[in-house]
Amino acid sequence: MSQNIKKIAVLTSGGDSPGMNAAIRSVARTCAYHKISCVGVYRGYEGLIDGDFVALDARSVRGVINKGGTFLKSARSKRFMTKEGRKIAYDQLRENGIDAIVLIGGDGTFTGGLVFNTEYNFPVMGIPGTIDNDINGTDRTLGYDTALNTAVEAIDKIRDTAHSHDRLFFVEVMGRDVGHIALNAGVGAGAEEILIPEEDMGIDRLVESLERSKKSGKSSSIVVVAEGDKIGKSVFELKDYVDQNLDEYDVRVSVLGHMQRGGSPTCFDRVLASRMGVKAVESLLEGKSNYMVGTIHDTMELTPLEKAIKGESKINKELIRVSDIMTT
Amino acid sequence: MSQNIKKIAVLTSGGDSPGMNAAIRSVARTCAYHKISCVGVYRGYEGLIDGDFVALDARSVRGVINKGGTFLKSARSKRFMTKEGRKIAYDQLRENGIDAIVLIGGDGTFTGGLVFNTEYNFPVMGIPGTIDNDINGTDRTLGYDTALNTAVEAIDKIRDTAHSHDRLFFVEVMGRDVGHIALNAGVGAGAEEILIPEEDMGIDRLVESLERSKKSGKSSSIVVVAEGDKIGKSVFELKDYVDQNLDEYDVRVSVLGHMQRGGSPTCFDRVLASRMGVKAVESLLEGKSNYMVGTIHDTMELTPLEKAIKGESKINKELIRVSDIMTT
Amino acid sequence: MSQNIKKIAVLTSGGDSPGMNAAIRSVARTCAYHKISCVGVYRGYEGLIDGDFVALDARSVRGVINKGGTFLKSARSKRFMTKEGRKIAYDQLRENGIDAIVLIGGDGTFTGGLVFNTEYNFPVMGIPGTIDNDINGTDRTLGYDTALNTAVEAIDKIRDTAHSHDRLFFVEVMGRDVGHIALNAGVGAGAEEILIPEEDMGIDRLVESLERSKKSGKSSSIVVVAEGDKIGKSVFELKDYVDQNLDEYDVRVSVLGHMQRGGSPTCFDRVLASRMGVKAVESLLEGKSNYMVGTIHDTMELTPLEKAIKGESKINKELIRVSDIMTT
Amino acid sequence: MSQNIKKIAVLTSGGDSPGMNAAIRSVARTCAYHKISCVGVYRGYEGLIDGDFVALDARSVRGVINKGGTFLKSARSKRFMTKEGRKIAYDQLRENGIDAIVLIGGDGTFTGGLVFNTEYNFPVMGIPGTIDNDINGTDRTLGYDTALNTAVEAIDKIRDTAHSHDRLFFVEVMGRDVGHIALNAGVGAGAEEILIPEEDMGIDRLVESLERSKKSGKSSSIVVVAEGDKIGKSVFELKDYVDQNLDEYDVRVSVLGHMQRGGSPTCFDRVLASRMGVKAVESLLEGKSNYMVGTIHDTMELTPLEKAIKGESKINKELIRVSDIMTT
Repeated sequence: MSQNIKKIAVLTSGGDSPGMNAAIRSVARTCAYHKISCVGVYRGYEGLIDGDFVALDARSVRGVINKGGTFLKSARSKRFMTKEGRKIAYDQLRENGIDAIVLIGGDGTFTGGLVFNTEYNFPVMGIPGTIDNDINGTDRTLGYDTALNTAVEAIDKIRDTAHSHDRLFFVEVMGRDVGHIALNAGVGAGAEEILIPEEDMGIDRLVESLERSKKSGKSSSIVVVAEGDKIGKSVFELKDYVDQNLDEYDVRVSVLGHMQRGGSPTCFDRVLASRMGVKAVESLLEGKSNYMVGTIHDTMELTPLEKAIKGESKINKELIRVSDIMTT
Repeated sequence: MSQNIKKIAVLTSGGDSPGMNAAIRSVARTCAYHKISCVGVYRGYEGLIDGDFVALDARSVRGVINKGGTFLKSARSKRFMTKEGRKIAYDQLRENGIDAIVLIGGDGTFTGGLVFNTEYNFPVMGIPGTIDNDINGTDRTLGYDTALNTAVEAIDKIRDTAHSHDRLFFVEVMGRDVGHIALNAGVGAGAEEILIPEEDMGIDRLVESLERSKKSGKSSSIVVVAEGDKIGKSVFELKDYVDQNLDEYDVRVSVLGHMQRGGSPTCFDRVLASRMGVKAVESLLEGKSNYMVGTIHDTMELTPLEKAIKGESKINKELIRVSDIMTT
Repeated sequence: MSQNIKKIAVLTSGGDSPGMNAAIRSVARTCAYHKISCVGVYRGYEGLIDGDFVALDARSVRGVINKGGTFLKSARSKRFMTKEGRKIAYDQLRENGIDAIVLIGGDGTFTGGLVFNTEYNFPVMGIPGTIDNDINGTDRTLGYDTALNTAVEAIDKIRDTAHSHDRLFFVEVMGRDVGHIALNAGVGAGAEEILIPEEDMGIDRLVESLERSKKSGKSSSIVVVAEGDKIGKSVFELKDYVDQNLDEYDVRVSVLGHMQRGGSPTCFDRVLASRMGVKAVESLLEGKSNYMVGTIHDTMELTPLEKAIKGESKINKELIRVSDIMTT
Repeated sequence: MSQNIKKIAVLTSGGDSPGMNAAIRSVARTCAYHKISCVGVYRGYEGLIDGDFVALDARSVRGVINKGGTFLKSARSKRFMTKEGRKIAYDQLRENGIDAIVLIGGDGTFTGGLVFNTEYNFPVMGIPGTIDNDINGTDRTLGYDTALNTAVEAIDKIRDTAHSHDRLFFVEVMGRDVGHIALNAGVGAGAEEILIPEEDMGIDRLVESLERSKKSGKSSSIVVVAEGDKIGKSVFELKDYVDQNLDEYDVRVSVLGHMQRGGSPTCFDRVLASRMGVKAVESLLEGKSNYMVGTIHDTMELTPLEKAIKGESKINKELIRVSDIMTT
């Protein structure tokens, strides 16, 4: 164990995701277990610059494991993108006797951490908290499993009414530039079509497929659309196009929106958060820095931060095929 | 008991609502209990005209009480608005030996039933199935309680992320021209403001109130907006106006949409559906017609169909006051 | 408005129920609205004797409306049953400048309040918080609607496995001496039999009915049993008896237990709590005392505390009949 | 692709688990995709012997992906354990032109399949459907993720009331001889202690730990107990022992029971079921037999059936350590 680390800070930054509170709790409890201090930073890098800290012991994180959002709050910080901002942040950390920091967030968060580490050689460790699952170095990001279930439960409800009225619904789910939520929630909800950025089926093939589906006797349909999909400029344009080219369907749109970011985390996300917090703190105590913790093949692994944020698609080709077969 | 009624048909029409399946089940089971036949009609008045019937005994409605939507499907029928369409429907009923019909739906459904009864003196009995709670003669319509809970659970999730990011969310809920869902879900979700058609607060008062709220230390806010509210032409226009007039807030919109129409019904709606089905069938057997069953002060009552569809506001003034106090 | 009341205390006592937090919030917000002080008392009458108080303003009850349990905690107090204990409690109230108290709980809570009021003429106002719905003067107690939904959702899951295996399940639900939860959750879950203390069907009639049900082709069955039912000494004895007398069934038991007391309150309970808190505080401000607030026919009403705790059955005979018809 | 396989049967056997319906659907859809026939067998091996079959095409499995239980029903078959029973089953398969069979279940199901294959060289392929996660050759069995979430949601509710009353709850979860559900649901629910068969902490250490916990200021506690744990003969004996040896706690028991076997499957289980069904059918079409499909490191893999049912513990030692740290 590193002799140098006596106090660790933790912050959440970027878009929030379910499980962030469970991860903060785990960081605080692991610090307590190793008898070092833990400090929470409010509002991500903004709070770091403002010195907006709160001491966290094992008790102060009681009752948060099942709460959505992040009690430390999150924010995007323009000031931290400047050299001056980061200098103030560094001074705050030093003044408060903080020796290392755990960053819970996505690629923007990690990019900030990398720059900060480069400038000040300050120990940082990342935890991938985002519903989008768009980070390398972990099979699943924190909050992704919860978001999938939120989406599937909502689509289940939409199917009830779609089926009662023989309607076609375009349901837009989150996921930024990647199709993980759309593909998995689409398969999970038994969608008739799934549109993801990684696979451009083209709008005409979509219309053909829907026509075929109608003829084969399907009276209602759900098309799950990733927000980053590029067939239409928006899900509403998709609807308009299909409205004009498919007489048989009564077409509606539902944008699931921000509810996908909240809610009590699933068991998977709570366990993942607990494991990630332990790994993050103990890796810092072992003298490591500039890594992100992740779960690869169900084992906790470290990945250099710069690799974690590289935009490589992790989309599962086998699952795309499964999705095609399921919509036979 | 009326000697004349040996076979009762049941249909669902108009927008679907959770609990319709439970009501169909109750109609079928009550017919079985009284040893008369029951027939389900597919796709509302459309199926009536097409003679699209299915025999329903006590067993054939097994396992539907907890399912959203309506397995008999629903539709709006232009043909039934014509004299010719209604004539065919009447002939279908006669040919199939059907003596009376239970209509599950909202005001459009009941209006159709009234006209039909006037023309053919055919016994009809209404069950108010709509999430909007905009029917007179019942304290609660079927599906309304479920829709409230769906809305509140979604807003709970949105609040998680609103609070993490200090954001202002406009959340649009359903309810057509009335504010029941908005007012109750708004109070239930602890919304900071609730905009309903029955009470026009004006956009400037809204902006003032949000400003005051910000100054008093509230960092995030939820404004629940009824779809029928008239302050903005849409919730997106509201957002734009506030964006332009309130610097301090990061404003987002979420339209909950059609998921509010689906989902497994709550215990209340399942029990209500069971009670309504019994009352509807037994009222027909007693020789009554042209009524809607409803629950008034927790007692099953009959209201003439023409009174049920009269547009009188049932909005609870006391609850509006409670809502004002809660957002102190 | 009473000139004398400047500070109101609120406590929760007895078994907890979902919505208690929402009621505390409403009491605190209503005090803030009327510009008087509010004080929370921890652990019911125990905290009253110990002077374990916390100031509650409008902000300090933020974020509790959707939380189960009671953040003020609850307890049963032996000391408050003694003259000495109540004397100390009275001194604590006087020392802290408290002019009135809102009691959230059930009959034990109200009995304590009545005695206290008799001895010290101290203004008290009750809010019926219990899942059992066994209080007069209100159509529904706070937490009852949530408990019904928790029970129904659990029984839905049990039915999945009962149906897959053609099993008979005895499911025990809460409700103390009354059958409200059993009757409503039983109808809501589509139970084949419902055993409540108010209607003793006798164990032999139960066995006959289950035999008949089996012969009519039902392969699985759910029997919902109120914890206060007296056919068997326990649900396990019921199982044993049926096991010995009914060869055809594979019989299991599930006791839903304390999960029925927790969980995020339904929209109905949150709205009810909000209304009750307003009515309780404003009634005290109007100089009233020794009442319980309740909802009768959807209107907020006051009932003298001594009437509220009188054990009269409110069981709905019409619903018992509906339940018989549904299990045809 | 194997020329010989033109018709595949699918059955569910042993204890049911959420996701079985989704797996049946996937088997049927994959058969349709490859233009071969699919047949469902009712009541597991019992229905195989009785020839209780139903044709399954792509449409006939519509709407089942989100339903708990198994619409093909499950049963344990004593007849299939005899040579005579298996001979009849084989004859039924031949008479119905069935060329291979997909077995959805746990170790009992696979043992039966192995014996059958040995005797008749009939192609069989297993899908691990059990909530217990006690099968080798797959990181997660079908239904396990759903059962975890059901358990965690129930414990969340129990914690509400435990915390309100400063109580100690022993909560028994399912899992047969292994501690997967207890360990993961325990960490997910933030339990203070977790008792699993794989780690015998001894009852005295438990009592010491609870005492220490109480002294450190924890007022309420949740102890999650695996049903296969051996400290007490039952969770009720545990309670009695602690009642006698720990004055400070008010101790209660909750046995979650069979609700853990039901409920709508999570997104993870629905996707897993879809992938497993495809892999099972396509492996049979490739001429393979006597394997179980599973997900290992997120990839679909085959494991010989005899290895799948070997009782090796897969319990995650790292997670046991995480659990120790979380309860600091």
